[in-house]
Amino acid sequence: MGVVTKEQLSGMGYEDFIKIFGNVIEHCALCSAAVWAKRPFNDLKQLHSAICTFIDDLPKIGREGILRLHPDLAGRIAEMGKLTSESSKEQLSAGLNEITNKEKSILQSLNDRYKSKFGFPFVICARENKKQAILSGIKARVENDKDVELATGIAEVKKIAFYRLLDIIEHCEEEARL
Amino acid sequence: MGVVTKEQLSGMGYEDFIKIFGNVIEHCALCSAAVWAKRPFNDLKQLHSAICTFIDDLPKIGREGILRLHPDLAGRIAEMGKLTSESSKEQLSAGLNEITNKEKSILQSLNDRYKSKFGFPFVICARENKKQAILSGIKARVENDKDVELATGIAEVKKIAFYRLLDIIEHCEEEARL
Repeated sequence: MGVVTKEQLSGMGYEDFIKIFGNVIEHCALCSAAVWAKRPFNDLKQLHSAICTFIDDLPKIGREGILRLHPDLAGRIAEMGKLTSESSKEQLSAGLNEITNKEKSILQSLNDRYKSKFGFPFVICARENKKQAILSGIKARVENDKDVELATGIAEVKKIAFYRLLDIIEHCEEEARL
Repeated sequence: MGVVTKEQLSGMGYEDFIKIFGNVIEHCALCSAAVWAKRPFNDLKQLHSAICTFIDDLPKIGREGILRLHPDLAGRIAEMGKLTSESSKEQLSAGLNEITNKEKSILQSLNDRYKSKFGFPFVICARENKKQAILSGIKARVENDKDVELATGIAEVKKIAFYRLLDIIEHCEEEARL
C-alpha cells in the first residue's frame, strides 16, 4: 500500500507533486513536471499512462537520454553507495547485493559492450528479474540492434515507473496488475 | 573564463559530461543526457544550439515542465537556502538579495498571480535583469496570454543556459555574445 491516497493525489499542489513523484522516472523530474499539465489524476494508472505518453512523444534522443540517466546495474555508482533510494531498493530486490565477483565482472563487461554499442546503458526492471535473468537478459539483448534496444529499454523504464508509483499511491488489487 | 577547454569538451565521456552540464537547464538533466547523442561539440555555441533544438522539439507540456522546474525568484526555496548553486548566483547578480520586504511581497504576489494564470512560474534571465527590471517585467508579462508566456519563458531559459555554459566552457570574445 502506498502513502498517498487517491484523494490526496487528485487534489495535490505542484510542490508536493514534484517532491513525491519527481523520481518516478530515474533522475528525470521533467517527466513529472510535464504531466502536471494533465492533472487531475484519479489513480495511479492515469498518472502512469500520462507519463508513458509523454515519454513516447519525446524526440528519439530524449528517449535515449532517459536511458542514459539510469545507473549501471551493480556498477560503480552502486558500489559508491550513491544510487537513488529507489534504485538501491530495486537492485537489492533483484539480489544484486549477493552478486559474486565473477558475476559482477561478467555483468560489467557486458554492460560496457552494451553501452559502447548503443550509447546508453542496459536498463531492465529489477523488480521483475532476479540476478540470473538479468545476466541472461543482457547477454541476449546486447546482440539486438539499436532501435530494438531503445524500445525495449523504454518499456522497462515504464515498468519500473509503475512499481515506483505502486510504492507511493494507495491502490486496489485490480490496479496492482500491470 | 570557463574551466573546460574546447579540447576537453569535444573528447569528454558521458559521465563527466552529465556531471558538468547536467544542470545547464535547471533541474533538467534530461536536456544534457539527450543531446549527448549529438556529440562531439566543438564549442559552447554548438552545445547550446543542440540543447535549444532539443527543447524546441519537446512536446508543449515538456516545455511547460521545463519552466515548472525553475524556482520562484526571491521565493520560498531561495529563503530556505535550497537553490541550486547556479540559481543562487544568478539571483544574487540581479540584486535579489537586496530586495526590500515590500518589493518581495509585491514580487511574490505577482508571481502567485502569474503561476495561477499560466500553470508555471515566471522565468527571466536574472543575469540580464536587475531587480527593477524583473519587477516591471513580471508586471507586464502577467498580462500576456499563455502561449506568449510559454515562448517568452523558454527564450529566457535558453539565455540562462548560455550564461551557464559561458561559466563552464573556455570561450573567445566572439562566442561570448549571444
